[in-house]
Amino acid sequence: MEQDATYYLEDLPPGTRFRNDAAVTLTETEIIRFGREFDPQPYHTDPEAARHTFFDGLVASGWHTIAVMTGLAIRSPMRLAEGQIGLGAEGIRFIKAVRPGDAIRLEIEVLENTPSRSRPGWGVIRVCWRAFNQHDEAVLEVCPSILVRARGTGAAA
Amino acid sequence: MEQDATYYLEDLPPGTRFRNDAAVTLTETEIIRFGREFDPQPYHTDPEAARHTFFDGLVASGWHTIAVMTGLAIRSPMRLAEGQIGLGAEGIRFIKAVRPGDAIRLEIEVLENTPSRSRPGWGVIRVCWRAFNQHDEAVLEVCPSILVRARGTGAAA
Repeated sequence: MEQDATYYLEDLPPGTRFRNDAAVTLTETEIIRFGREFDPQPYHTDPEAARHTFFDGLVASGWHTIAVMTGLAIRSPMRLAEGQIGLGAEGIRFIKAVRPGDAIRLEIEVLENTPSRSRPGWGVIRVCWRAFNQHDEAVLEVCPSILVRARGTGAAA
Repeated sequence: MEQDATYYLEDLPPGTRFRNDAAVTLTETEIIRFGREFDPQPYHTDPEAARHTFFDGLVASGWHTIAVMTGLAIRSPMRLAEGQIGLGAEGIRFIKAVRPGDAIRLEIEVLENTPSRSRPGWGVIRVCWRAFNQHDEAVLEVCPSILVRARGTGAAA
């Protein structure tokens, strides 16, 4: 797909893919800062105490990784006319722990595309965001539903 | 349920409920800070520009609200022996926009309780987290699956 295009509902049939390889590294400092603020558990906040937990060391909160994925999605080539207006999400899988120094990149796939009956000129796409680490291992998957503007021709895909 | 108890798999049958009424207020400053770092869209980062968007004003990123709900869950009476080890989540619904000054509290309900076959001494609970604002309006729902230690009697509920 083109780098600078703005996408409307009709441009996003199921199977459309985007990626953002501008990987974001989660540092120990950032993992601890997010953990202290939002997810205060030893394996997110204290490298020493984390060694004696299920994770055997510091790991990023899954919500931290999703927040980083959100930034990658916003800055991906999938630019939407009205921004990424989330209605909800399904299918969150915390597949592999993200540890300090891991660099996360994002792939996006459109799964469903449904014109809205109640809101003319709009539709909903269900997408899958998949995050990979620097070893190309999948670490996290989440499938948001996003409200998308149609071009308004009345002929949404 | 008791305030200071530690909960194991057997203590958490479906229908068990907890709440954390220690509401957290999302300020404009915090909403913008989270938005700039993780979800850089005008309706999360710029009060003036936000007026001309779908939301007609500044709103918290849904992932910000979920992060706040996570803190409320961690600090709720549902204290788990090994912490809240998330495997994934389903059923995220961004029900109502969270705006600057809204105060969020949390209710938790256990939906399912399944002893693990592959990991003796552990099980998985599926819970529903529901966030309400200061007007007792539901704003966000998410149903995480959490790995929980069993008491080890071999008689998990």
